Amino acid sequence: MDDCLFCKIAAGEIPARKIYEDDQVVAFLDIQPVSRGHLLVIPKEHSESVVEMPIEQLPHVFGAVQRLGRAVERALGAQGFNIVVNKGAAAGQVIFHTHVHVIPRSDGDGLKAWPKLEVTDEQLDQFATDISEALQ
Amino acid sequence: MDDCLFCKIAAGEIPARKIYEDDQVVAFLDIQPVSRGHLLVIPKEHSESVVEMPIEQLPHVFGAVQRLGRAVERALGAQGFNIVVNKGAAAGQVIFHTHVHVIPRSDGDGLKAWPKLEVTDEQLDQFATDISEALQ
Repeated sequence: MDDCLFCKIAAGEIPARKIYEDDQVVAFLDIQPVSRGHLLVIPKEHSESVVEMPIEQLPHVFGAVQRLGRAVERALGAQGFNIVVNKGAAAGQVIFHTHVHVIPRSDGDGLKAWPKLEVTDEQLDQFATDISEALQ
Repeated sequence: MDDCLFCKIAAGEIPARKIYEDDQVVAFLDIQPVSRGHLLVIPKEHSESVVEMPIEQLPHVFGAVQRLGRAVERALGAQGFNIVVNKGAAAGQVIFHTHVHVIPRSDGDGLKAWPKLEVTDEQLDQFATDISEALQ
């Protein structure tokens, strides 16, 4: 898509530190990493976010994520990693081309889990009912 | 697997607020949510983490994640959501049965993005080289 940063990276028009590329996906380092080796996996075909990405692309994109997750552990001595997808600006999405973050993690790296919310059983029951109805 | 909490939820031996279920996956509310409607999607077949999950399960699991993401937006008036998978204790994994978090998000909900790391171009070049080599 015109004026999409990640389409231009996929097409080789803007440079990036590419880690992996095939006919459907590209993986490259995030230039604003939250941990050493933080990378992004994107489908080459443009979609605005993960809910618009055609379901046929899921195995290829997340298959690459699996392999890259194993690779960051081996390469960097990480003890694990997070896979994160942000859908929507409210969730932290900045570039509106589907991308999956792979964030290498190590014990004591200082990245904090989000705090738990205080909720009652009745609230949980209501959320479950509301979401189930919206799925219909 | 014996003594796996999520296998027992999948088998109906332990109660959970189930939102969706089919022959391969179950989705249910996280009882320690970080936002309203925070839910988990699990494959019924046991795997310790996302890297051990058979690749054939990816489209079904992440297809359910896509649909549930859309449903939480409709149900709760959320403006987006995060998809998060924690691989390994260092990354925050607590239950060692593959699970995908779907975390509804709203403007001003107070959940903070992780801080950026200070890195040099030379360090980024080295990470890219190291990860590329580990992929071979």
